[in-house]
Amino acid sequence: MSDFSFIGNPTPAVDGGEKVTGNLKYTADLKLGGMLHARFVLSTYAHAKIASIDVSAAVAVPGVRHVVTAADLPDLVPHSRMYLMLARGRVIFVGQPVAVVLADTLSAAADGAELVEVDYEPLEAATNMDAALAEGAPLVWPTGIPRGAGDEAAHGAEAGGDAGSDEEISNIAGTTRIERGDVDAAFAASDVIVERTFETPMVHQSSIETQALVVQPNPITGGANVWGSLQNPFGARWDIAEVLGVPESDVNVYGMPVGGAFGAKFGLYEPLVALLAATVGKTVSLVLTRGEELLTTNPAPALRMSAKMGFKSDGALMAMQTNVIADTGIYPSGLGGFAAMQFASFYPCENVLLESTNVVTFKPSVGAYRAPTSPTSFMAVETLFDEAAEQLGMDAIELRLKSAARGGDAMPDTGEFPTIGMVETLEAAREHPIWQHRDEARQKGHGVGVAIGGWMGGLEPGASVCKLNRDGVLQVQIGTADLSGTPTTFALLAAETFGIAPDKVRFVYSDTDSAPYGGGVGGSKTTYTLGNAVIRAAAEARKQTLSIAAEEFEVSAEDLEIVDGRVRVRGFPDRSIALGEIAGKSMTFGGKYEPVQGNGRQAVTDRAPSFSAQIAEVEVDEETGEVNLLNLAVLQDVGRALNPLAVEGQMQGGAIQGVGWALYEEMRYDDDGQLLSGSWMDYAMPDAVQASPIETQILEVPSESGPFGARGVGEPPVIATIAAIANAVAHATGVRLTQTPMTAPRVLEALEGR
Amino acid sequence: MSDFSFIGNPTPAVDGGEKVTGNLKYTADLKLGGMLHARFVLSTYAHAKIASIDVSAAVAVPGVRHVVTAADLPDLVPHSRMYLMLARGRVIFVGQPVAVVLADTLSAAADGAELVEVDYEPLEAATNMDAALAEGAPLVWPTGIPRGAGDEAAHGAEAGGDAGSDEEISNIAGTTRIERGDVDAAFAASDVIVERTFETPMVHQSSIETQALVVQPNPITGGANVWGSLQNPFGARWDIAEVLGVPESDVNVYGMPVGGAFGAKFGLYEPLVALLAATVGKTVSLVLTRGEELLTTNPAPALRMSAKMGFKSDGALMAMQTNVIADTGIYPSGLGGFAAMQFASFYPCENVLLESTNVVTFKPSVGAYRAPTSPTSFMAVETLFDEAAEQLGMDAIELRLKSAARGGDAMPDTGEFPTIGMVETLEAAREHPIWQHRDEARQKGHGVGVAIGGWMGGLEPGASVCKLNRDGVLQVQIGTADLSGTPTTFALLAAETFGIAPDKVRFVYSDTDSAPYGGGVGGSKTTYTLGNAVIRAAAEARKQTLSIAAEEFEVSAEDLEIVDGRVRVRGFPDRSIALGEIAGKSMTFGGKYEPVQGNGRQAVTDRAPSFSAQIAEVEVDEETGEVNLLNLAVLQDVGRALNPLAVEGQMQGGAIQGVGWALYEEMRYDDDGQLLSGSWMDYAMPDAVQASPIETQILEVPSESGPFGARGVGEPPVIATIAAIANAVAHATGVRLTQTPMTAPRVLEALEGR
Repeated sequence: MSDFSFIGNPTPAVDGGEKVTGNLKYTADLKLGGMLHARFVLSTYAHAKIASIDVSAAVAVPGVRHVVTAADLPDLVPHSRMYLMLARGRVIFVGQPVAVVLADTLSAAADGAELVEVDYEPLEAATNMDAALAEGAPLVWPTGIPRGAGDEAAHGAEAGGDAGSDEEISNIAGTTRIERGDVDAAFAASDVIVERTFETPMVHQSSIETQALVVQPNPITGGANVWGSLQNPFGARWDIAEVLGVPESDVNVYGMPVGGAFGAKFGLYEPLVALLAATVGKTVSLVLTRGEELLTTNPAPALRMSAKMGFKSDGALMAMQTNVIADTGIYPSGLGGFAAMQFASFYPCENVLLESTNVVTFKPSVGAYRAPTSPTSFMAVETLFDEAAEQLGMDAIELRLKSAARGGDAMPDTGEFPTIGMVETLEAAREHPIWQHRDEARQKGHGVGVAIGGWMGGLEPGASVCKLNRDGVLQVQIGTADLSGTPTTFALLAAETFGIAPDKVRFVYSDTDSAPYGGGVGGSKTTYTLGNAVIRAAAEARKQTLSIAAEEFEVSAEDLEIVDGRVRVRGFPDRSIALGEIAGKSMTFGGKYEPVQGNGRQAVTDRAPSFSAQIAEVEVDEETGEVNLLNLAVLQDVGRALNPLAVEGQMQGGAIQGVGWALYEEMRYDDDGQLLSGSWMDYAMPDAVQASPIETQILEVPSESGPFGARGVGEPPVIATIAAIANAVAHATGVRLTQTPMTAPRVLEALEGR
Repeated sequence: MSDFSFIGNPTPAVDGGEKVTGNLKYTADLKLGGMLHARFVLSTYAHAKIASIDVSAAVAVPGVRHVVTAADLPDLVPHSRMYLMLARGRVIFVGQPVAVVLADTLSAAADGAELVEVDYEPLEAATNMDAALAEGAPLVWPTGIPRGAGDEAAHGAEAGGDAGSDEEISNIAGTTRIERGDVDAAFAASDVIVERTFETPMVHQSSIETQALVVQPNPITGGANVWGSLQNPFGARWDIAEVLGVPESDVNVYGMPVGGAFGAKFGLYEPLVALLAATVGKTVSLVLTRGEELLTTNPAPALRMSAKMGFKSDGALMAMQTNVIADTGIYPSGLGGFAAMQFASFYPCENVLLESTNVVTFKPSVGAYRAPTSPTSFMAVETLFDEAAEQLGMDAIELRLKSAARGGDAMPDTGEFPTIGMVETLEAAREHPIWQHRDEARQKGHGVGVAIGGWMGGLEPGASVCKLNRDGVLQVQIGTADLSGTPTTFALLAAETFGIAPDKVRFVYSDTDSAPYGGGVGGSKTTYTLGNAVIRAAAEARKQTLSIAAEEFEVSAEDLEIVDGRVRVRGFPDRSIALGEIAGKSMTFGGKYEPVQGNGRQAVTDRAPSFSAQIAEVEVDEETGEVNLLNLAVLQDVGRALNPLAVEGQMQGGAIQGVGWALYEEMRYDDDGQLLSGSWMDYAMPDAVQASPIETQILEVPSESGPFGARGVGEPPVIATIAAIANAVAHATGVRLTQTPMTAPRVLEALEGR
């Protein structure tokens, strides 16, 4: 019997009807008066000098209003990809925007873009980490790698030896090094040492909805109104204001419904489109095509991770060491250092050495993708655990349980772990039928592998406002875009707190002018942090509501309860008043009560790390090398499953993307930097059959600080999939795959090398 | 030396730039995808049976999508004009919508509307109060006058003898009667009795912007998104939700900038347009033409007011009596009763008899117009005071001062007057040079007249939200449309309270989903009531801001001050932090402070009556009867002039409209109910020269409950103008005009009757 009235009930998405009927408007649906459509002219070379750009044929196309090149825009310091704008004199990756055609219609813009003639003088390019690190490699940034404030902070004191400005100019954007204890001595004292090098390629977030943005300039203030598919409308407001040179309050950003983001929509072309709109004085819409999306956005980095772990014969973890090389395309990124951190975050160990090197290459810059770098980090740590268990003759889960983090253990950065469910998750995996029957599976020629993934969870202050309307509906505002089903979850939180049915709660989308501060949607933090703001706002609204009713009934608020949409005097069910009537008394000419408007603000500073274990059962075709995923169980500690339907959706979605990482997806570039997987015909994502055998099991180890104990659920389920499948392949075949995707040719090659 | 930093400074409208450059978008500027334009087919008869409607030619016009008649719409009970929708079988005023053509373009809609053939069978109509009251008059509502809940409330217990349902059906929609003391005895004991009958015609609010509305239906929820020029977006939300049969929370209303309203935009065609949009499943835009605006909206009622006052020889006010007949067009209205109330509200008198009769006629229904009915009520009371002073041989201002309401006097409805400035306003008028030199003026053949007008002021709960952004800007939200310069005033209130420069305050327009409840803009209550909400929100935001700074500096918040956009430690000007930096610490990934978001809620229940005296100097051409307004001084107690520029604008605007009432404006109908002044060529409003000689003098008698002592300022300045000019005409010529507008023919007729 649940202690709750509404949370914990599987609740379909409140906006499901609008979405499936196509009634919900996305950014690409917006048609504003006088709006111009933008189409890029993209570089066809990874590295070339731009000798000339001839726009004459393009501007002659009927409907084309402007063809904009770098010469038309201010020459900003390109301290991040967002400020690179259009190529100026030189292109440094295939797909880099060189010019933009602005036209009355999309087709005119496309026609115009085809007619812009760019005369390139090709130059040698280094398009992967080895080529970029080679002696005499062509330099992505011959005068020095640009560094943004954010990037410097991502390295910084803890990281140690950054490649300072007095060093020689190279393609090395930075290095990090974190050492604790005495790693050499610990390895020397180890009975078993396991060591491998893992590689994952650039992988694309590939949402169904591409990047989309509309900017309407305001010639009076110099600011703008902006509509976009954005994970962080408040961040976009800041970025656009900065490039327009106005206070952020003169930019208003409408976070439109987001048709998938996964980390890719934290900012990319917002400053460029804002500058274009301001320059031509017209509303400009940019909606990327699928091909552009793959060529010119910000995928996950390519990582090469050498990793090493030492154990005593009783399974005690002695030392962990990793060295990560991150290929982050043309711009620096802190993701390599983060990958090294993630390797050693959840198995507390006294002797740790974490190093990373960030290499820039002539490819698009990189960004976040669901649990950034963690699939790679956990591929490393969980493969090595598996191998060590094998060598130690121990059960793979028991070995992990010896070292798994528990509440009170030291966290990798600072402080102690709060209550966490890593042990409970591993224990649940141990009891899972697939794991229990792994020997039978092996006898059938299958393999079963297990792995766990952990995520610290992001934090950010945020606020909410909660109003009661005359129809008895509670309106809840938060300042984030609709992403991953949060409206439904927030409706449940408000309903539970206020004491009203969830279908009497409406979630309100607002622009940055009107909305409470929400921060970015990402890092598995939205429900965890903003959920607390919603609860506080709803609680305050409830208190205000009861206070009005108390005055009406001339009783104490403590003697009142809310039942079935009415406030009633406890023990006197006939003395009751509808919630809408209470609201009406505060929303009317001459009314004597203040409107019900609860204010909820939060700045949770305690983390709530969450864990997802996965158990994969595979069959490997030894003739072709094809890996057939038979079963994939996803077990996850979500703290409290506020809406089990949404939680399971996140678990399944994450695991499907994990399957993509493990078996299918790769942004494959040739040596000239040409993208070979530049469409969804070539860039392989798991199809419905390939992704179907996913089973979910929700675990609940409540977090102290989450709303009703909830933890973030978005990131964890993508983390362990590669490792679980790789361990299953090893169980089936005896070979350890260390490179993804584990395609048939790669598996075949590994099998042949046995 | 002012005690304030910002309030009291004449401050130009914050949105002036956007307005004068045409950058600000009004409702008529909205172009939504797939939007259909609506054009009415209007009745050409005041009363007729509709034999048939032939739409065949109209639907054949290219671009015409639908021709809608009553048959296509649900047959709602027409309990108010808003629910009358389209004429069903019968038309009852010239200009009543009979059909609506919906087309892709405005011109196609107009072409279509011209081709709709309505076959009328004309019936006899009663188009003025006398005809409607005559024996055997044609009945506007042969089966009984419809009564809305709102209308019944406007009459009600206090009013006494309502024409109940058991009475004979007539054109009398209702009567009211209020009696205090013994009026007959008081008149019998009076030494001087003055008595006249006054008449004012229907007058139109005539904003520059006509009625305009866009409704986008939501087929999933059954609700809608609405954009409109509305005085009460929250009221429109309710009305539209009711007609669509959905909870109000499923309707979202964007209160667009309003290009003038003056009471006319509290609701009219919102339900019809919402039904049209829902019926055809498309976005529908209705923007009235000027001609439609004059024919088919809701002007001020025509009033005939018989009034009588008795005085003792020492000037003591013994008795007041009035009987009002209100011609309110096709629908009942409480305005006649209100006119009677206004007659006796501000000169406390023990013996009072107030009666009114509401007559319906075959003309458009009526609505509010700035200080509804008060120009007529004060024409009566202030003319009679003038005449009594003459007969008593007393100074006209001294006589008023004897009886003027003072703080502590009984208010007409209930309770006592709070601090008010009626006496101070009359005393200031007494000292005014025009009044002081009235004898010299008379010697030049001019006349000088004085009058005062009073307004109780409306009340309504409302709320505000106040946020601090990373650019150091304070964003202030309230839930009303932009009307009459309130953004600038609210910016001053927030600036003064928070301690920030007004140019660092931004006012945010929101829709009803996102905005705090604001109520209607009208009744001179917006600044008075919502101003308090803004102050509370800003004060809470300031407290939150200081609390963050206190933690940063490790000092008590009491030791901090805000100076020049920075929080600093008192006495240590070097220890300071920019406001934007404080906001930044609460609006960032990993931040430890809650976002600054102040919540301000208010339900002021004390009124703050305000008074405007006016002194007019006129010259009357005795050959033509033309009245030439030479000077008009407007003296007004505004409590506190938060923004003197805005206050003076209100005073001048009100007085200009008062001049229109006095000398020019009349909706003139012939006996068949045809509007003779159906365009701005015929409907005369004062032009720039005619309205130019207005001088303003601000008085400040602070109200106890207003923001920094402010009172509502919008309504009072229109009230006294008729009376001041009429009294000046009497001073110049010896004749008392009792009918407006005081056009040359009317004045000439009066002069001839001397």
